[in-house]
Amino acid sequence: MTKLYFASDYQEGAHPEIMKRLMETNLEHTEGYGTDAYSNQARAAIRSACKAKDAMVYFLGGGTQTNATVIASMLASYEGAIAADTGHINVHEAGAVEYTGHRVLALPSKEGKLAATTIDTFVAGFLKDDSWDHMVYPGMVYLSQPTEYGTIYSKAELEQIREVCLKYNMKLYIDGARLAYALEADGNDVTLEDLAKLCDAFYIGGTKCGALFGEAVVVPDPKAIPHFFTMIKQHGALTAKGRILGIQFGCLFTDGLYERVGANGVAMANRLRQILQDKGYELYMPNPTNQVFVVMDNDRLARLQERVVCSVWEALDDSHTVIRLATSWATTEADIQALAECL
Amino acid sequence: MTKLYFASDYQEGAHPEIMKRLMETNLEHTEGYGTDAYSNQARAAIRSACKAKDAMVYFLGGGTQTNATVIASMLASYEGAIAADTGHINVHEAGAVEYTGHRVLALPSKEGKLAATTIDTFVAGFLKDDSWDHMVYPGMVYLSQPTEYGTIYSKAELEQIREVCLKYNMKLYIDGARLAYALEADGNDVTLEDLAKLCDAFYIGGTKCGALFGEAVVVPDPKAIPHFFTMIKQHGALTAKGRILGIQFGCLFTDGLYERVGANGVAMANRLRQILQDKGYELYMPNPTNQVFVVMDNDRLARLQERVVCSVWEALDDSHTVIRLATSWATTEADIQALAECL
Amino acid sequence: MTKLYFASDYQEGAHPEIMKRLMETNLEHTEGYGTDAYSNQARAAIRSACKAKDAMVYFLGGGTQTNATVIASMLASYEGAIAADTGHINVHEAGAVEYTGHRVLALPSKEGKLAATTIDTFVAGFLKDDSWDHMVYPGMVYLSQPTEYGTIYSKAELEQIREVCLKYNMKLYIDGARLAYALEADGNDVTLEDLAKLCDAFYIGGTKCGALFGEAVVVPDPKAIPHFFTMIKQHGALTAKGRILGIQFGCLFTDGLYERVGANGVAMANRLRQILQDKGYELYMPNPTNQVFVVMDNDRLARLQERVVCSVWEALDDSHTVIRLATSWATTEADIQALAECL
Amino acid sequence: MTKLYFASDYQEGAHPEIMKRLMETNLEHTEGYGTDAYSNQARAAIRSACKAKDAMVYFLGGGTQTNATVIASMLASYEGAIAADTGHINVHEAGAVEYTGHRVLALPSKEGKLAATTIDTFVAGFLKDDSWDHMVYPGMVYLSQPTEYGTIYSKAELEQIREVCLKYNMKLYIDGARLAYALEADGNDVTLEDLAKLCDAFYIGGTKCGALFGEAVVVPDPKAIPHFFTMIKQHGALTAKGRILGIQFGCLFTDGLYERVGANGVAMANRLRQILQDKGYELYMPNPTNQVFVVMDNDRLARLQERVVCSVWEALDDSHTVIRLATSWATTEADIQALAECL
Repeated sequence: MTKLYFASDYQEGAHPEIMKRLMETNLEHTEGYGTDAYSNQARAAIRSACKAKDAMVYFLGGGTQTNATVIASMLASYEGAIAADTGHINVHEAGAVEYTGHRVLALPSKEGKLAATTIDTFVAGFLKDDSWDHMVYPGMVYLSQPTEYGTIYSKAELEQIREVCLKYNMKLYIDGARLAYALEADGNDVTLEDLAKLCDAFYIGGTKCGALFGEAVVVPDPKAIPHFFTMIKQHGALTAKGRILGIQFGCLFTDGLYERVGANGVAMANRLRQILQDKGYELYMPNPTNQVFVVMDNDRLARLQERVVCSVWEALDDSHTVIRLATSWATTEADIQALAECL
Repeated sequence: MTKLYFASDYQEGAHPEIMKRLMETNLEHTEGYGTDAYSNQARAAIRSACKAKDAMVYFLGGGTQTNATVIASMLASYEGAIAADTGHINVHEAGAVEYTGHRVLALPSKEGKLAATTIDTFVAGFLKDDSWDHMVYPGMVYLSQPTEYGTIYSKAELEQIREVCLKYNMKLYIDGARLAYALEADGNDVTLEDLAKLCDAFYIGGTKCGALFGEAVVVPDPKAIPHFFTMIKQHGALTAKGRILGIQFGCLFTDGLYERVGANGVAMANRLRQILQDKGYELYMPNPTNQVFVVMDNDRLARLQERVVCSVWEALDDSHTVIRLATSWATTEADIQALAECL
Repeated sequence: MTKLYFASDYQEGAHPEIMKRLMETNLEHTEGYGTDAYSNQARAAIRSACKAKDAMVYFLGGGTQTNATVIASMLASYEGAIAADTGHINVHEAGAVEYTGHRVLALPSKEGKLAATTIDTFVAGFLKDDSWDHMVYPGMVYLSQPTEYGTIYSKAELEQIREVCLKYNMKLYIDGARLAYALEADGNDVTLEDLAKLCDAFYIGGTKCGALFGEAVVVPDPKAIPHFFTMIKQHGALTAKGRILGIQFGCLFTDGLYERVGANGVAMANRLRQILQDKGYELYMPNPTNQVFVVMDNDRLARLQERVVCSVWEALDDSHTVIRLATSWATTEADIQALAECL
Repeated sequence: MTKLYFASDYQEGAHPEIMKRLMETNLEHTEGYGTDAYSNQARAAIRSACKAKDAMVYFLGGGTQTNATVIASMLASYEGAIAADTGHINVHEAGAVEYTGHRVLALPSKEGKLAATTIDTFVAGFLKDDSWDHMVYPGMVYLSQPTEYGTIYSKAELEQIREVCLKYNMKLYIDGARLAYALEADGNDVTLEDLAKLCDAFYIGGTKCGALFGEAVVVPDPKAIPHFFTMIKQHGALTAKGRILGIQFGCLFTDGLYERVGANGVAMANRLRQILQDKGYELYMPNPTNQVFVVMDNDRLARLQERVVCSVWEALDDSHTVIRLATSWATTEADIQALAECL
């Protein structure tokens, strides 16, 4: 019996429109390292979507690489990056940020989110400490939109955080690995244009949002990261056949594909959340994006896993476990229906 | 008028058989990070091709990343990597190795190759120096096959270098970014099996040998690099959709595709070398692989560049320039014929 | 009016016996980098005091340098160091450990101490996590004896932690910046010999225990850190005139000077604690070593600071502050008496 | 029979005036980390000697540490430091600069010195290379005054190098480990004031010029290295008892001690050079500072080494060796006379 796959949003290849475009262009000849016309078209499309006409746009291969490269390139060597204690760079990136020599300054979060006041209190306390110059200086705030728990920041929340950053001369960087699903979430009021206005850098996730692989880093102020190209190379993050990333992002930003990818993931997750609630399951952490966190009785989970591949998130207590069911651009109504029957 | 592209061996997408396979498998669901069945099949195929049944095989995204990750993972922190002064890690990787904290110990080379005696003399001199323990210890020899100049090491040469490595307890690592073209070169006597016997690690290049992107690192002794998976992640070199690399390498190692890729690049380069010699051009550095280095009169070069995209390698003198014309799996006889007409 | 100095245990020069010895030997000629006879004599004295005849002993300049060098030299690149959240490397070393590429894995502590069970639970949980190989591997436990709060581990506690380290194949490293004061503390049952048996490495603090500067790293198993000498040099931690460190540690381990230094600091601190309690002050964190943490009413503190230089530790609430009063080898009964009059 | 020591300029303790001052101040209480009055007085004296009233002055423990800390703090992560191939950071510092992630860009030198034209040609060639943004950017020129071979740059030479630095927006940093001996050399026309005008940073060596240990980094523009204090701490290069460095440098810059130290070393070396020439020895590399490089017949060297401790520099041929005889503040006429008798 075939299993149902809800373990993650990167378990298929790429959106068929992307694959089609890669096929069509496959034998064309282009220059390397992202200097080709497809990459330039994709940059233009992203600048346009962000209404940021001077922005620098760089394509990198994956999320950990992107985070480590951007963070190391924006921080001075005595600085660290503030992140939610549940943030990806603080947990699941094998110390990639520390490997570049920078501490992750983990602060308490709520539902995966950092509050502006938490950051403000921390930095204010830091600066009041007599020994602050013996400690890692907070040089940047790292957020992800959506967060590790699929929750999203509102525009007002981001503006407050931005103000704290300006107050203390810290950079603001947003990890958008699953950005498509935030942009299309019910209640979301944060646009790409807002991100370009509020952030010193952010990335538009491709790997988890329909691409084979790839992330697009947007640096709104073109002078913000001098020699970033060389630093990307230095981090081993420069793709020789850059056009492969350019073609994919060009496609994602043509005919609203990025919106459609996000919308499908969100719609399927909403359907699933409704089914779960109807069946009396407890959602561990309600959120409006493409990840569904459910509390499962361990016996029931064992039976479910015979049919469904899901992510085991954490043990809640001796008899209950939190699991994650992720939808994506590839999830169909039939998939949800089949899953519903197993629940 | 369309230009002819001979600038590099990474100017197209992927070999059509690979694209076809990516299309066929696109909507299948798999686990992430290279734990999927396709990656495991590719590993098995590579182990078999290398006759190294216990070898660990890891798939990474690109060459600089692979070199930095392998070198940093194999060296102790007080060690550096010996390389030819013309070697890629010493010139064109933006200090990626130094970024991991290790010095590249550049030694004089001939036609891109390091001689065993050069290495032996260097290390012997190092160890005789009273202050050796104030200096960077030579922990590894880095070679590339073929070299930056397209030349190849013979089996006897590699065996001699291996002996020097054993004598001084150094690791041997071979960068095979263009390995397909070395394996199929006229006069080559070094097989994948030989590499697996002689090296502590080497990589089988995909990016320049028919794949969209990707390199396969082979570690013959499975215990040689403990926790290498985590270090790959730490270097930002772990691909979330690992199956994309697995599918590509599975395809390259099915029905002799890797051999065919290499054979075509070599045959087309040989044809081109013959044409150049017939027309009286001087080859700057004769070699049997897919890169052709030619000395061009600057005026003639200017005319050529109106029709042909090539790599300008270096100024030879005030009126002559060395250029590189690269062939690949994608070069056709028609391309060579068209180029011949421009020469 | 002269102030009273209780701000730290490094506010004077060196113990007079050390200064005398530096004067006596000042014009002698010796070899550099710790290869001289004085350094060798000091090593022999320390080996003897630790009853560890094969131990390697290295002299470094200061504590942060020593911690960063030892930790980076003992950890593989994918490993981090477990430390108390209040530990020095986690707070006041400006990210020196992260600068070497390693994460500090901070765990909850009580009175500055890590419990064996806390470590065990953390590592067990880590290894049970499906994604453990995406995370920083716990390669070492870092403790300090005494802790940042002047508390000490008992021999039984260290043995339990050692067992956890062995269970998970982690190294144990102890920072002994103020070790003299732990060795002489009332109730202490941990000897240098015990430390040499229980630790993979530890350091005997000089800077805060009577030396001008310098720390002695003891590595009981001589093969435990290959090429450590070169790594010390690489970290900029090798003293050219190594004999200055050798002479100082030789002196500290002659005629029981290290014991006398510790005993004086402890005796003076005990006297001070008694006075404080008699006067009704609240000790913030009782401990048996040379640091006295007191809760002060803010108004009273302001008056005290007119006469006494102390360390402001942290604000307890709006009207109370925790201060630290430190004694040392240099503190006299007259100093304590004068301080008592100000309290 | 007592040996004669000419192996280095760091084989004794400190100049007696320094030891005296350390003794006099030994029991005084001061604040830590270089915030004390002695450190501030020394800073003022150095600023005055450099006629650089706004300069920041930092005291670090040793040369390798100073070089690694200053270089890493001044370079962006994509930049490397140009140095003479014979420069100390390129040879004898165990990869300390690479450990911080930066490449040393070694250029050919003559008598230990880099020529402005060599630097200009290199950087011009670099910038003309199509692939320059794949390579390590030259961000700084590292010189030492005097050089590894005891030679000195003239003011005109430094001005030319400074111009090249300005032309390409590179920093200029000078390692003055033995600066006292350059300042007092016959024919020297470079003053501390000149260095402060020409350099972005330089250090005034203490360890080899009369101090127990310590180097004084001068940063003429106080805004040139933001947060340098924290970076010093991060590199483990911050001395807890900073006053020990402050007292020493205060003493070196009182009553012309630094000049006297330099003058004695130079005078004794000049005497020795005269004796060697009179006796028909060949000076390997003539220079006006405190290091004397002599070509010795191997048999004669063996006999000399029975009486004299010297540094073996390198084998010249099968029967001749280059040795170094170093003088210092501590060398007496009697020492030179005794050595003369052995020659």
